[in-house]
Amino acid sequence: MNGYCGQILRVNLTSKEITTEPLDPEIAKKFIGGRGLGTYFMSKEVDPTVDALSPENKFIVATGPLTGSPAPTASRYMVVTKSPLSGTIASSNSGGFWGPELKFAGYDAMIVEGKSDTPCYIAIRDDKIEICDASKYWGSLVAAATDGLLEEFGDPKARVMLIGPAGEKLSPISAVMNEKCRAAGRSGVGAVMGSKNLKAVVVRGSGKVQVADSEKCSAALKDIRGVLKEHPVTGGGLPTHGTAVLVNIINSSGVYPTRNFQEAYFPPADQASGEVLTEQYLTGKDVCFRCPIGCGRVSKADDVEGGGPEYETIWAYTADCAVDDMAAVIKANMWCNEYGLDTISAGATIACAMEMNQRGLLSEEEMAMGPPLEFGSGPAVIEWTRLMGIGEGLAGKMAQGSYRLAESYGAPELSMTVKKLEMPAYDPRGIQGQGLQYATSNRGGCHVRGYMISPEVLGIPEKLDPMSLEGKPTWAIAFQNLTACIDSLGICLFTSFALGAEHYASMYNTIIGGEVTADDLVEAGDRIWNIERVFNLAAGIDPSQDTLPKRLLEEPIPEGASKGAVNHLDQLLPLYYAERGWSTDGIPTDEKLQTLGLK
Amino acid sequence: MNGYCGQILRVNLTSKEITTEPLDPEIAKKFIGGRGLGTYFMSKEVDPTVDALSPENKFIVATGPLTGSPAPTASRYMVVTKSPLSGTIASSNSGGFWGPELKFAGYDAMIVEGKSDTPCYIAIRDDKIEICDASKYWGSLVAAATDGLLEEFGDPKARVMLIGPAGEKLSPISAVMNEKCRAAGRSGVGAVMGSKNLKAVVVRGSGKVQVADSEKCSAALKDIRGVLKEHPVTGGGLPTHGTAVLVNIINSSGVYPTRNFQEAYFPPADQASGEVLTEQYLTGKDVCFRCPIGCGRVSKADDVEGGGPEYETIWAYTADCAVDDMAAVIKANMWCNEYGLDTISAGATIACAMEMNQRGLLSEEEMAMGPPLEFGSGPAVIEWTRLMGIGEGLAGKMAQGSYRLAESYGAPELSMTVKKLEMPAYDPRGIQGQGLQYATSNRGGCHVRGYMISPEVLGIPEKLDPMSLEGKPTWAIAFQNLTACIDSLGICLFTSFALGAEHYASMYNTIIGGEVTADDLVEAGDRIWNIERVFNLAAGIDPSQDTLPKRLLEEPIPEGASKGAVNHLDQLLPLYYAERGWSTDGIPTDEKLQTLGLK
Repeated sequence: MNGYCGQILRVNLTSKEITTEPLDPEIAKKFIGGRGLGTYFMSKEVDPTVDALSPENKFIVATGPLTGSPAPTASRYMVVTKSPLSGTIASSNSGGFWGPELKFAGYDAMIVEGKSDTPCYIAIRDDKIEICDASKYWGSLVAAATDGLLEEFGDPKARVMLIGPAGEKLSPISAVMNEKCRAAGRSGVGAVMGSKNLKAVVVRGSGKVQVADSEKCSAALKDIRGVLKEHPVTGGGLPTHGTAVLVNIINSSGVYPTRNFQEAYFPPADQASGEVLTEQYLTGKDVCFRCPIGCGRVSKADDVEGGGPEYETIWAYTADCAVDDMAAVIKANMWCNEYGLDTISAGATIACAMEMNQRGLLSEEEMAMGPPLEFGSGPAVIEWTRLMGIGEGLAGKMAQGSYRLAESYGAPELSMTVKKLEMPAYDPRGIQGQGLQYATSNRGGCHVRGYMISPEVLGIPEKLDPMSLEGKPTWAIAFQNLTACIDSLGICLFTSFALGAEHYASMYNTIIGGEVTADDLVEAGDRIWNIERVFNLAAGIDPSQDTLPKRLLEEPIPEGASKGAVNHLDQLLPLYYAERGWSTDGIPTDEKLQTLGLK
Repeated sequence: MNGYCGQILRVNLTSKEITTEPLDPEIAKKFIGGRGLGTYFMSKEVDPTVDALSPENKFIVATGPLTGSPAPTASRYMVVTKSPLSGTIASSNSGGFWGPELKFAGYDAMIVEGKSDTPCYIAIRDDKIEICDASKYWGSLVAAATDGLLEEFGDPKARVMLIGPAGEKLSPISAVMNEKCRAAGRSGVGAVMGSKNLKAVVVRGSGKVQVADSEKCSAALKDIRGVLKEHPVTGGGLPTHGTAVLVNIINSSGVYPTRNFQEAYFPPADQASGEVLTEQYLTGKDVCFRCPIGCGRVSKADDVEGGGPEYETIWAYTADCAVDDMAAVIKANMWCNEYGLDTISAGATIACAMEMNQRGLLSEEEMAMGPPLEFGSGPAVIEWTRLMGIGEGLAGKMAQGSYRLAESYGAPELSMTVKKLEMPAYDPRGIQGQGLQYATSNRGGCHVRGYMISPEVLGIPEKLDPMSLEGKPTWAIAFQNLTACIDSLGICLFTSFALGAEHYASMYNTIIGGEVTADDLVEAGDRIWNIERVFNLAAGIDPSQDTLPKRLLEEPIPEGASKGAVNHLDQLLPLYYAERGWSTDGIPTDEKLQTLGLK
């Protein structure tokens, strides 16, 4: 099969059984790969009501047909499992080099089942698969464990996907890491590895991805690289300043959530902007497999140096905690990477704890383990991140994420989450469509299931009034479906700033082979969105959870360019359900599911 | 001092004495740093007639005032010493991260003197300097030695500059390597480290480079990054395809030396082009410190993966050896990196050996250690590179470079060198100004002392007729002087595709402080060029060596776009001498030297 390896690896950690099975071409066509294929397997094999941290949950890593291919940004793999944070389907993706390497070893996806009695890791050398003892790496920080595993594996060019101590301790905001600083960050997927006693998967492959029509492919990819290069975002802002190029743009639009979303404008934001990162802290770039964009940064503050920080990380650790110090972000980011914590959820949870302290909910005694949890404290954000990685006392409660933290103090309304997942760096009060997107995202408060910031703030592909409700459900659905398709193809979402569905169809046809149209791909995205929704409903995620924190619906933004705004989700949601072909209470109709071939 | 650390480190390997001394601000102003500063120290402290491999030669590593600063591409360090290959002053520079780290540790330059009795390395942790035993790394390949040294040093973020086995065995085409695949490649500078029993210099620093006017600097650098981003070479060709973007351009111009310069057009060149590298072999990018261009590639062929290959490497191993296989280049390049060989000289020496074999100069017996040395053989270029790294038998003779090889068989005219340094990938018969540049370059056959390809082929900053002689001495001198200045500032020469002298002056003034003009910088470049010339003359490099291989002056190019051309150096050289302010026989006049403050 062109694009695909045609083979799925299945590892049962209870029975130690290791098997392979062919990839069904019909399923590949319907669900593409990555997020779609992983969700298909979850729907088919896992009871949605299962405890996410039980051996009955499965941990699926799925690449897309473009992963490891000559397509630009062909680096992505997707972790698909049931989330221990939100209870929804989780699909968190990461770049770097691990995904392509799994393809080179010959597998489109790996399904990990059961639970090992003792800490283990999976070693993959083409068709030689072993389950190995990982006792000596259990408890190790990410960089040291990566180095140790590479040495033990005996090939410095192997790739390591692993969890840090946070995942081992089942923190529902823990990440799966690869290449030390790349993360499948969100939804607590690290804890699912931890629950299976699986520290790492090390892979090295000698194969390559076959292309259907190499001549046409070569011409098509040349055009596409040209489009990426010419675009001001993929050829300008992202390569120059990384994702942090957004800081000044979002803050000046007055939608940069500040002090745990109490405000939406942070006057000293420019002191921790992409421009400042580039000039004062940047030491290098960390570019993913075959990526012509190269947004990944390497930065250094005092004696701390490493990958990142990303825009969302900067936001969580600066404006959301009211800190104006980039060096603090770089250091906190390093602890997130080392302990394997999601930077957005970790930073936002510290912001939530700061507001809890502001409102007198935390005692001096329980805070005594670290610096006072006060807005504006750089030392606090650094040290509490480390303490959350260790996971004792108050920091242990914080490592459960902001919802469980705030709820345990009787103040769940202080958690800025949707479906218990912390929202990232865009205040939905000043961006109506983004609010709808957060509320309806199948994994909760997430910006990368449909990035409405693109039309509503950046004006890509066209500028929409962020405060208008007009047409927003249509736009949100279009973005959600296309994103599901891109996530399933195995390339980077950032390509969509410059590329449209027709470009993805062109890559599909010349690399995988076939004559799919742009509409076919968007329909596959719709199918993937709906199979996720069906999983969530069966898991008990009621449509009443399609909402936003009360603050964002009721308390107007106090200052800045979006002063006075609240989100009008109540007006948008019924239109969204209708346009999705769902019932008025948000349930996909039989007719809709039949149209998509899901029933 | 802004920009500078203000301190020089001096290590005597004979006496084990380690001292520091202040950088004289007047000298810094006159010679800038890097290449200029290193040559100043060599001129002041080393007898130019010294044996390059004796303890009396010095091994100087000098950064520039912009190295490690916020300036884009602020990564370069320069190795300055007397070359064991050419007997000239050598100044070979490299990017990556080593140079900035030396600045962070507090040193503008390091002067290594004498010779250690046993293999050693120098460990630098800010102001803590040690000379350590390197016996266990002697003989180790570059990647393994780097890993071992990092582990022993105890900080994975330290940076390692080192030699491979080729440098240990004093091969005059051996390189100094850093970050495993970056090279101060040319002039055999690795052998000077080897002659001092110095395997490596490991450095880690905690400081930073101070900036004179951070507000003005910030604005100036923003503009400069914009200029780099907008330019089709620094913002387009180089980021997309790396330096290999040149393959098809140079070949179609009929100046792509083929079969050891017997021809200048290689029909299958497009099978080993930048475009093919990008689509079939590229796995990632290897971006230097603070570089917005990101030309560095990571590529993979079968089980071989690593940094590179560069355009010049591809040329040397494909057209020059008539091989049409990119996988062979990637593998040969890997051996060069592992043994620490200059890829241009190594590949070109194999091409020379192939022509020697074509002409019946080599016996079956001496060639029996490897595949037949026949034009077109991929296996030959891979295996003979490895054998040159080991350095026995015929391969040991080849590891002396093509001049000593061909001369030892009585056929020095088959060595395509200037001053014994192998010329790179541009045939001077079809590019008159580049021929003048090769002939007059102070380190011999080198393209990066004044890249006349820029105006003569690429049309930057304006298109010159490559076959015309009109104005070429003026252009060559302007390029040579500006290049000397850029090499001394510590940033990457590739910036000069987009930037002019006024941009460098702007960076100088806002980072280092001062009010230098573009003309001041070019005059400093002129000063540096002349001090190099004076060193070479004193070293016994007669102006009669300002020439090209006879073939290029007498045998017309047989095929391709530049068919029929020869180089007319005889017409250009007298004009060049005159315009340089030198005597008719190529000696800088007292008046010229006085004007430059060199007498």
